[in-house]
Order: sequence, then structure tokens, then C-alpha cells
Amino acid sequence: MTSDKLLFTPGPLTTSRTVKEAMLRDLGSRDEEFLNLVLSIRKRVGQIAAAGQGYTVIPMQGSGTFAVESVVSSVIPADGGLLVLVNGSYSERIARMAAQLKIPVATLRCAENENHSAAALEKALRENSFVTHVAVVHCETTSGVLNPISDYGRVTASFNRGYIVDAMSSFGALPIRMADAHIDFLISSANKCIEGVPGFAFVVAREQPLQDSAGWARSMSLDLFAQWKGLEESGQFRFTPPTHALLAFAQALQELDAEGGVQGRHARYVANHRTLVDGMEAMGFRAYVPARLQAPIITTFHYPAHPGFRFEEFYRGLSGRGFVIYPGKLTQLDCFRIGNIGRLYPHDMTGLLGAVREVLGEMKIPIPVT
Amino acid sequence: MTSDKLLFTPGPLTTSRTVKEAMLRDLGSRDEEFLNLVLSIRKRVGQIAAAGQGYTVIPMQGSGTFAVESVVSSVIPADGGLLVLVNGSYSERIARMAAQLKIPVATLRCAENENHSAAALEKALRENSFVTHVAVVHCETTSGVLNPISDYGRVTASFNRGYIVDAMSSFGALPIRMADAHIDFLISSANKCIEGVPGFAFVVAREQPLQDSAGWARSMSLDLFAQWKGLEESGQFRFTPPTHALLAFAQALQELDAEGGVQGRHARYVANHRTLVDGMEAMGFRAYVPARLQAPIITTFHYPAHPGFRFEEFYRGLSGRGFVIYPGKLTQLDCFRIGNIGRLYPHDMTGLLGAVREVLGEMKIPIPVT
Repeated sequence: MTSDKLLFTPGPLTTSRTVKEAMLRDLGSRDEEFLNLVLSIRKRVGQIAAAGQGYTVIPMQGSGTFAVESVVSSVIPADGGLLVLVNGSYSERIARMAAQLKIPVATLRCAENENHSAAALEKALRENSFVTHVAVVHCETTSGVLNPISDYGRVTASFNRGYIVDAMSSFGALPIRMADAHIDFLISSANKCIEGVPGFAFVVAREQPLQDSAGWARSMSLDLFAQWKGLEESGQFRFTPPTHALLAFAQALQELDAEGGVQGRHARYVANHRTLVDGMEAMGFRAYVPARLQAPIITTFHYPAHPGFRFEEFYRGLSGRGFVIYPGKLTQLDCFRIGNIGRLYPHDMTGLLGAVREVLGEMKIPIPVT
Repeated sequence: MTSDKLLFTPGPLTTSRTVKEAMLRDLGSRDEEFLNLVLSIRKRVGQIAAAGQGYTVIPMQGSGTFAVESVVSSVIPADGGLLVLVNGSYSERIARMAAQLKIPVATLRCAENENHSAAALEKALRENSFVTHVAVVHCETTSGVLNPISDYGRVTASFNRGYIVDAMSSFGALPIRMADAHIDFLISSANKCIEGVPGFAFVVAREQPLQDSAGWARSMSLDLFAQWKGLEESGQFRFTPPTHALLAFAQALQELDAEGGVQGRHARYVANHRTLVDGMEAMGFRAYVPARLQAPIITTFHYPAHPGFRFEEFYRGLSGRGFVIYPGKLTQLDCFRIGNIGRLYPHDMTGLLGAVREVLGEMKIPIPVT
């Protein structure tokens, strides 16, 4: 057994030993034990989203992007249109996805460390009558910025438009209540804050607009309504499910409960994030996103100004010490990212900080950096 | 650790302990070790398909159907059309998939225990000039029938049409040579005869038609050309890969080699199949597919005529003894299916036969059945 590097990334993440061990089985995809497992997962995910009567949960094979596309390509009618609030590459991707699907799309853009105002959304909806649905990303892992999904939900509902929230990297760690935020379709993935392994994602859906979408899907594999119907009628996935990833996820949900649910997980991630940012700032690093807009999920730091700083060298120095960080994804700015989700604790963040100090020393970059 | 039931199904399958143990790790999806793993998998899969210079391998997240759709939705141009040779529900599914994608589609249909003749394909291509691509399923797990893909390839190539082969449940156990069979796009899945776990599938593609298809994809997630470009340019998947399923697959490929490659695996499956069919026929069961068209993968048996036979009771009796079989999928006929692929050996087939005998006894059905 190797001792793997710790992953300070937006996922795949470091998961617990017990989550991985749950995969040491082979279940038939039509066997009763597996069908019960799927049912219990759907139920528990719904509870986490405060999705009561009138809501349902639909797991979808593939990565989170597959599940986002299953929503976008399934629930927008042929004569519909999408408005995307863009402030990072994941929201940008949704706009590109809609365009590739030949769905008319409008975008509102702002800087990647800022939010759109609710007033801007209101104005855009007034000006773009072709828009039937609004999509937004909750925590943009491009930068780590948190978007006010309830504010946008209120506006979208007042225009009687469908509301799609990509909660990929927030669900399970930040509280989300479907009805309170007026969300029709929420998407997240197995390998984010629930701390499962990658292989599938899931959609929490309001049943009425889901039912309305019967026959609209542009793809067979990603047909959200058909996937739901299959699960409701037989308990089975239409096409082979990643049985092992589902076993791991069921275990991960138990471990989420044992940690005190969303509240407990949130507390640990906040502690991780606090330890990280305090330590990095003490070494002179500057975070890109203002603290008031920063989610406790992933943090973007500016490169130090010192001419000796080379990201590749920095990355390799940390990786060699067992700490995997993440490159930046901003178009305009030299930066890198450090995630604090997954089976990581404040002492792991402290370990990473020590390694950062060592690697900067090797690179002969004085601390504090400027 | 539970001792799981043995799976006599078309997948997910019973896999080796060591394949599952390979998942007890968390690799970053951009980390060098993982990128090397993906590269080695692509290379080895290509070798198994005898795909030399001018061919490439593209893993795709999701089930096998997702990978089939990634081909159908990506490589057929906007003014193209598809001809599907249908003799089972998987080929039927490809035709429905094309229709949902609004791709013009023609079908040739024959009974589910028969093959289409090469002459019938030739005639259909002559009569349907809108057809740019032909799709066929190698082993139709609906029935277990094996289709002569090389014969169809020869005809398709003579008409200069693209050729898509769904080799989901045959690749790795039956020899396939891309060029010899004139295949442009071959699709299979991690959890079939290579004996990995579900989570992704893969496409072996001829590079020229793949390159020609740039910009044609109807979906972002399933964009085959973009997936290939991403892998070629950075070694990375565009969207989160199922890292654990890929780790398991790399181990499964090693175990395939250790067994003597395709030849060795084929020999074991043939022995499994022989043991199964001989034993079932000795008890009076009748196979649906004539022996000369039967692949050594999965076998369809008629229900016994005895009025006391209830499939649900039969299934549960076997399942209670640790043997999971599969229901039938034929529209016209009462039947069930028994797979013989996965980490199963002739002695497992013998174990199953003993259980069948016991359960028939409990059901008070005399042996031989009629």
C-alpha cells in the first residue's frame, strides 16, 4: 500500500480509507442490495438539500460537467433560452455548453473576484425575453468566490424563470435549501464535499419542471427525465452505473453524518481554510478574492512578485513533499490555488504551510514574500 | 469483508480482489503518476485492438452507452446519416440514440438469433445514399449472438462509408483487429471482458475520420474530438476522470496479460461457456441462439415449459445461494440469460449448475426440464 500525496485540489480529493474500502465489493446493478443502496443515497442527498415533497434526486454517470449538461440539454425547451451569470470558467463553460447544444444563450460577465448584483440579473431578465432559464455557479472554483444564489433565486422566481444552480464544490459543506433559494435544478458531484470518489454526479430537481421536460432531451445518455423515470419505475439506472463509486458514496454519506452533517463539515473546512489563509498571509502571500466573498473551499493566491518564483518548481517541491496543490485558472493573472476540502484537517494545512516555507527557502525566495 | 455473490451477468462483473484493491488510493487527476497511468492504458488498449500507426484510444467517462453516443454524436456530420444493423436491443438502442440526436437513421432488422448477411448490408447501402456511417454490435448481449463484423467492414469499406463497431461485451476476449475489419470507431467498456470496474468506457479510433470530425460534436461532455485533443495536448481529461476506476483498469490490464492476453482470456471464457451450456442442456434447458452464432460471453435459455416455473422464484433461489443471473431481454420470448465473463472459472459454472439443480428441486420441476 502506498501512502498517497495529500490533494489540496478541487477534486478528485483525498478520501478516507473507509470510503475507499467500501469499493472492495462487486454488486450486481440489478441486485436488491444495490437498488436499496441507490434509493438510500437519493433519499439522503435530498435531505441534505432540504428537498422535501415535490423534489427528487437523480444520479447521473460521468463527471460533474456531464450532470450539468444533463440538466442544460434536458430541461430547456426547443424554443427556450439560457442566461448564465459568468464570473469564472465553470460558468463560462455552461455558456459554451449551451451554445454547443444550439440553445440561445445570454451572458452577464463580471470580474472573477466579484459577484453580480441581483439588480443586474433583474435588468438582464427584463432585456432578454427569450430567456427561460437562469444558470449560476455557487462556488466558482476558478477563483474560490462564493455567489449569492438565494438573491438570484428570488429575482429569477419573480420572473417565473427556471433556476439552475451548479453547486459542484459547495454541496455538503455549505447549507443549501432548495425551496428557500427557489432552485429548480441543483447539480453536484460525488467527489467534492461529500468526499466520495469520482464516477458520477447528481441532480436535485423540482419534480414539476422535470416532468414538464419529458421528451425534450437532446441526448439519450444525458436524458435527465428518462434517467429519473428509469429509477422511479425499476430502481435501476438505465445504463450501467458505477457500482463501486456508489458504494463509496454511501459510506461517505455515513461519514458526513458522523461528522455532524453539513454543519460539522462546514466547521472543519472553515478551520482548514482559516489555518491556510492565516499561514499564507503570514508568509506574505495575498489572496485574490476579498475575504467577504471567499468560500471556505479553495483559495486563489497571487504569485509572489520575486523574479525567482517559478510555479512549476514550487509545485514540484510541494509535490515531492507529498502535497499536491493546483495551478491557477484565471485568464488575466498569475496565480495558484490551494483547496482545503476532502479528508484534510487543520494539521494537514499546517503541514502544507511548513512545506511551502521549505520550498520557498530552496528557491531562495525571502519570507515574507512580496 | 463480505463475500459477494458471483455475478453471471453482462456487467458489472465479478472482478479480482487485486483489481478492487488497486482503488485504495487517491491520485490527483493532473498528477504525473496519474497521467502516465492514463497514457499506458491508452497504449495497451490500442495494442489489444491491433491499432497501430494512425489509430488512437480515447477513454470517455460514463457507461458504455455514453461512449457509443460520444461516437454517434461526434463523428457523423450535420448532413450525414447512419445505418444500423439491428438484431437485438443494443443495436436498437443505437438507432433510437441517432433519432434522438436528430441524425437521419436507417435500420436493417432480423431475428435476435440470426445475423444479417453481407449482401443485405450491400443492398441497404445501395438503396440509402444518405448513409455516411454504418453501426453494428459485435456481440449482442440481448441474446448472446455474435455478428460477423469483418464481413460488414469489408462491404462498408467498399462503399467508402464510416464503420462503427460496438464491441462492448467482446473486446478483450474475442480477437479484433481494427484495420483488418476496416473499423473506424470501436467502443468498449472498462467493466466487460477486460474485467475492470464500471466508471468509464473507451473508443479506439482511426485518427483521420476523428480529425475530420473537429467541431461536429452535438454535445460538450461527449465531444470525442475535444476529449482526444485534451488528452493529446496535456495528458489530462477535460473533465474529472474516475481516477479509481482507471487505477482498477490498469491492474485489470496487467491481469489480462498475465492470463495470456486475449487468447488466454478467450480460452477461459470458452471453457466457462462449454461447462455452462453442457450442464444446462444435460438438465434439458435449450439455448436460444444456434451454437454456430453463439459468442462465449452470455447465453440465453428458454424458460422450461413446466407450468411451475416462475423466473422470479428461480432468480431468488439462485441469488440466495450466491449466484446472480440475468433476466431475458427478448421482446417475443420468455427467457433468461447467464453470463460467463468476469473473474469466473469453470468450477464457478459447475457451482451454478448445482444451484440450478437444487432450485428446480425446490420448485418441484422435474429434471430434465421440458
